[in-house]
Amino acid sequence: MADKINPVDHRILKLLSKNARLTYKELAELLGTTRQRISRRMNRLEQSGVILKYTVIPDYDALGYIHVVLGITLKPGADVREAIEALKTDEHVKVIQRALGSHNLVIHVIGPKDMRELERIISEISKKVPAIDHMDVTFITETIKFETL
Amino acid sequence: MADKINPVDHRILKLLSKNARLTYKELAELLGTTRQRISRRMNRLEQSGVILKYTVIPDYDALGYIHVVLGITLKPGADVREAIEALKTDEHVKVIQRALGSHNLVIHVIGPKDMRELERIISEISKKVPAIDHMDVTFITETIKFETL
Repeated sequence: MADKINPVDHRILKLLSKNARLTYKELAELLGTTRQRISRRMNRLEQSGVILKYTVIPDYDALGYIHVVLGITLKPGADVREAIEALKTDEHVKVIQRALGSHNLVIHVIGPKDMRELERIISEISKKVPAIDHMDVTFITETIKFETL
Repeated sequence: MADKINPVDHRILKLLSKNARLTYKELAELLGTTRQRISRRMNRLEQSGVILKYTVIPDYDALGYIHVVLGITLKPGADVREAIEALKTDEHVKVIQRALGSHNLVIHVIGPKDMRELERIISEISKKVPAIDHMDVTFITETIKFETL
């Protein structure tokens, strides 16, 4: 990070975390500044990688999908990067995060409600990562709160 | 869901999952339809709850925060709703999800990098839910992929 994150950046991010579709104009009005300044700060946050993505959080159940979180613990000494490379291009794997603690790798799978088909997908994923020691499988049934900042 | 989700809705959601800041105009051009139709479909998706939120995914490390996922297993027979109510208003708890499987409850905490302070925050959270049987603590160190659809 070449640029320091200033208090205005924090306020912009907080507002975008509640509604990422706020326009430059709306953000400028909420923060008592100009559209130009908002646009310039947001461009910097995007280019420096502080903002990874603007996205939509859907209700998977309403769309006919199941959201599964796989908490993966690799065997001692296993290469996490190898596991990540093997999973990156899997169309069912939507989120990949490196981690420390109970799990080394957290993966989100969005799959069909058909449990047999879902079993096949998860089994395919685990075959791609031979270094898996243990995998916690958690089905998300309802999102009660979702904020990012 | 009174309204059926049609193929256009799916395509809108897919595009918004990649970039939630796309304008009605940009979405209309990408999908070969009108701004009016995009606006109408998006309003329906928002009002019916299919779209829970438009948000920003930040790089927590760059902002000076640590992102912790708590996978909570409650004691058999415990009331998940009670646990949710106790955690809802906690300012450090950003995500609360009901779940089935390895964990009954998945919680995301955004806290400071100071490990002593973080320990205090997690300890406060676990005190609020006396029905906790087991808690997996996972520190997210890097987000490699983040898609929602």
